[in-house]
Amino acid sequence: MMRDFIPPRRLLLGPGPSMVHPRVLQALATPLLGHLDPAFLGVMNDVQHLLRFVFATTHPFTIAVSGTGSAGMEAAIVNVVEPGDAVIVGVNGVFGMRLATVIERCGGKAIRLEIPWGQVIPPEMIESALRRSGPVKAVALVHAETSTGASQPLDTIGSLCRDHNALLIIDAVTSLGGMPVDVDRLGIDVCYSATQKCLSCPPGLAPLTLSSRALSVIKGRRTPCQSWYLDLALVAEYWAEGSRAYHHTAPISMLYALREALRLVEEEGLPTRVARHRLNSEAVVAGLMELEFTPLPLTEHRLPMLTCVTVPPHIDEAAVRQQLLQIYGIEIGGGLGPLKGKVWRIGLMGESSTEANVLTFLNALEEVLIRFGWLSTPGVALQAAARVYSRTVRKEHRA
Amino acid sequence: MMRDFIPPRRLLLGPGPSMVHPRVLQALATPLLGHLDPAFLGVMNDVQHLLRFVFATTHPFTIAVSGTGSAGMEAAIVNVVEPGDAVIVGVNGVFGMRLATVIERCGGKAIRLEIPWGQVIPPEMIESALRRSGPVKAVALVHAETSTGASQPLDTIGSLCRDHNALLIIDAVTSLGGMPVDVDRLGIDVCYSATQKCLSCPPGLAPLTLSSRALSVIKGRRTPCQSWYLDLALVAEYWAEGSRAYHHTAPISMLYALREALRLVEEEGLPTRVARHRLNSEAVVAGLMELEFTPLPLTEHRLPMLTCVTVPPHIDEAAVRQQLLQIYGIEIGGGLGPLKGKVWRIGLMGESSTEANVLTFLNALEEVLIRFGWLSTPGVALQAAARVYSRTVRKEHRA
Repeated sequence: MMRDFIPPRRLLLGPGPSMVHPRVLQALATPLLGHLDPAFLGVMNDVQHLLRFVFATTHPFTIAVSGTGSAGMEAAIVNVVEPGDAVIVGVNGVFGMRLATVIERCGGKAIRLEIPWGQVIPPEMIESALRRSGPVKAVALVHAETSTGASQPLDTIGSLCRDHNALLIIDAVTSLGGMPVDVDRLGIDVCYSATQKCLSCPPGLAPLTLSSRALSVIKGRRTPCQSWYLDLALVAEYWAEGSRAYHHTAPISMLYALREALRLVEEEGLPTRVARHRLNSEAVVAGLMELEFTPLPLTEHRLPMLTCVTVPPHIDEAAVRQQLLQIYGIEIGGGLGPLKGKVWRIGLMGESSTEANVLTFLNALEEVLIRFGWLSTPGVALQAAARVYSRTVRKEHRA
Repeated sequence: MMRDFIPPRRLLLGPGPSMVHPRVLQALATPLLGHLDPAFLGVMNDVQHLLRFVFATTHPFTIAVSGTGSAGMEAAIVNVVEPGDAVIVGVNGVFGMRLATVIERCGGKAIRLEIPWGQVIPPEMIESALRRSGPVKAVALVHAETSTGASQPLDTIGSLCRDHNALLIIDAVTSLGGMPVDVDRLGIDVCYSATQKCLSCPPGLAPLTLSSRALSVIKGRRTPCQSWYLDLALVAEYWAEGSRAYHHTAPISMLYALREALRLVEEEGLPTRVARHRLNSEAVVAGLMELEFTPLPLTEHRLPMLTCVTVPPHIDEAAVRQQLLQIYGIEIGGGLGPLKGKVWRIGLMGESSTEANVLTFLNALEEVLIRFGWLSTPGVALQAAARVYSRTVRKEHRA
C-alpha cells in the first residue's frame, strides 16, 4: 500500500505556484456542493464579483475558465479567431510564442512582432503593423512575460486597436493581482489570467473577462468554436445569472479556493498590494545586483512580481538552484527556451511577496555562493535590500 | 466585505459530484509544491500508478488531464481525429451527442448510430456500420450514459475495432471506480473519465489512458492537434518519466486529492467496491420500483452507480427534488435534454454509495410523497430495500 504523502517544506519563489494562504487551503477542504446547487451558484456570483474587482472592469462576462492559465490563453484565442483571421502578436518570450502557436492551431494567421527577449514591444511597432496589414481580427500581447520578467506597456494600445477595429487580447497570467490590470481603462477586450501567480490560489483555474465588443464578435462567428469545452458562448449559459444551464461540471473546490484568495486581495486592497509587490521587488533586485546578477529588462520594464536576472557564466546556476531547494527548501525558477541555463526567475507573487521571504532568499543565496567560492563577504545583498526597505516609511506592519 | 462561505449540509446523490471522503478534503489542503519539484513528480508517479490500477491497464500513457471530464472527452477526440476522419459514435443520450459534436468541431465526420435513449448500442449495429462505412478512424462509445443510466456492453467491440483497423474510444466518466473498466482486457485504445463520480474526488481532472496503438496514431498525425492545451503528445513530455518538460502548470492540489481518492479505492479493492455499488443500486431500485418509479433501461443494462427512473406524470418532479434539497439537504438529479421533467437520476457513486444513504434517501422521498398526497403508507420503499439487503450475507461491516 502507498504511504501518506507528506510534502517537504517549501518556500515558493519561482514563476508559480506561489505560496497559498492557510485560509485558501482551508477553503479547498470545504465539503462539496452540487454544481447547480443554489448555494454554489452564490459562490460563483461572489467569484464573478471579486474577479471584476481585480480586473478593474464592469464587464458582465467575467468568469473562471475550468483549466490552468494555458487553458485561459486557448479559450481567449479559439473563441475570437476563425480560420483565416489575422492576429498581430507580440513575441518577446515563451508566452508570446505560445500565443502565436495557439493562433495558428486554430487556423489563424499570426503576424509576429518579434523583438529580443527581455525587451517590450514598442507601441509604434504595433501601430505600424496595424497600418501595414490588411484587416486584423485582434492584437495579442503578454502583459507580464514570465519567461523574461518584462512588463509590456499597454497605455496606448487599446485606442490603437479600436481605431483599426481590432480586439485587444491581453495575457495577464502573471500580472493580475500584483500590478494594475485596468481592463476597462486600457480598453482590453479579452483578458485572461491564472490563479497560481499573484492571486496565490492553487493552479487550476483561468480568470477571464470579455468586453461587449469581444462578446459580439464571439456570438457573430461564421464557424463554430473549434473547442466545445472552452466555447465561451456555451460556458456563458452556465455562468450567466438567470440561465445556469449545465455545460460541464465546474471545478467546485477550486472555485471555493479562488473565492477565498480573491477575498484576501480585496481585504488588502489593490493599491497596498501593488505597492507591496513593488517594494519587495526593488529590495530583491538591489540584493541581486549587489551579487552581480543583473535583471534582463531595462529598469522601467521590470515586472514587480517576477525578477529575471542573468547568471554570470562562472556560476553553475543549476547547482545553486539545487542547493537552494535541497538545503533551504527554496524554489526559484530557471530559464526557459533560449534562456535555459542563463537566467534565474525569482517570483515574489501574492503571498510569496514578503520582506521575510526576500531576506530569507538573499541570505540563503549568499550562503550557497560562499560555499561554492563565488562570494567571500556574507551579508552584502542583505545590506542592499535593507537600504531599500529603510527608505520606506513604516506606516503599519509590512507584510 | 464578503462573508465567510459556510456551505449548507448536503447529501450528494445526483449525477456528480459525489460525496468526498474527509481524507481527500484534507489532501486538498496540503501545502503546495512547485510543479517541477522532485517531491511533486513523485505524486504524479503515484497518480499514474494508481490510475493504471483502476483502469486495469499496463498502458504507460496513463495520466490526469488538467480539466473536468468534458476536457477528457475533448482530449480523446481532438488528438485522434484529423479533418475528414470518420468516427462511428453511439448516440443514446447527452454524452453520445456531445461526442458527436466534439468530433465535428475538429473536422471529423461523425457516423451516428442513433437509438432510443435508455437503450444500448447493439454490437451488431456497430459491426454493420464498420462494414458499411469506408475507412473509420475510431469507434466512440459511452460506457455509462449518465443521462439515461444505461450501461453499454463492450465485450466484443475491441476485437471488432481491431478487425477494421479502428481505434476504440470509451467514455468511462461515470463508470470508472464503480464497475469494471477493464481497459486492457476489452482492448480499449483511448479511455477517459472524471474524478467527481465513482472516484469521489472533487471535479477538475480527467483520468485518461492511451494504448500504444492510439499513441502511434497520435504521433503519426498529418496535422497538428488543434488544441495546444490538450495536445497529448506535448502533455506526454511532462507526465513521462525522465523528461518532465514544462508544458502547463499542473493543478497541484487536485492531483494531491486524486492521489488520496485513488488510494481509498486501492484500500477497498475493486471487487469489493464494485459489489458495494451493485448492492446499493439494487436496494435503491427495489425501493423506487415499490413507489412506482421505473428504471429507464432494461434490467441487464442498468448502471450500478446511476439509476435513472421515469417519474409518473401525476408527480411534480421538480417540486419533489426541491423539497428533498431544501428540507433534507439531499441532492438528486433531474433529466437532461428530452428527458427534462420526465426522469430523476439518483447517483450512488463512490463515497455516496452506502446503505445509510439509500435508506436516508428512500425515507425522505417517502415523506415528501406523503406530504404531497402521492403516497399513503410510509416505509414501503424502505421495506423493499431491506429485503435486498437481507439477501446479502454480512461478512463484515457494509459501508
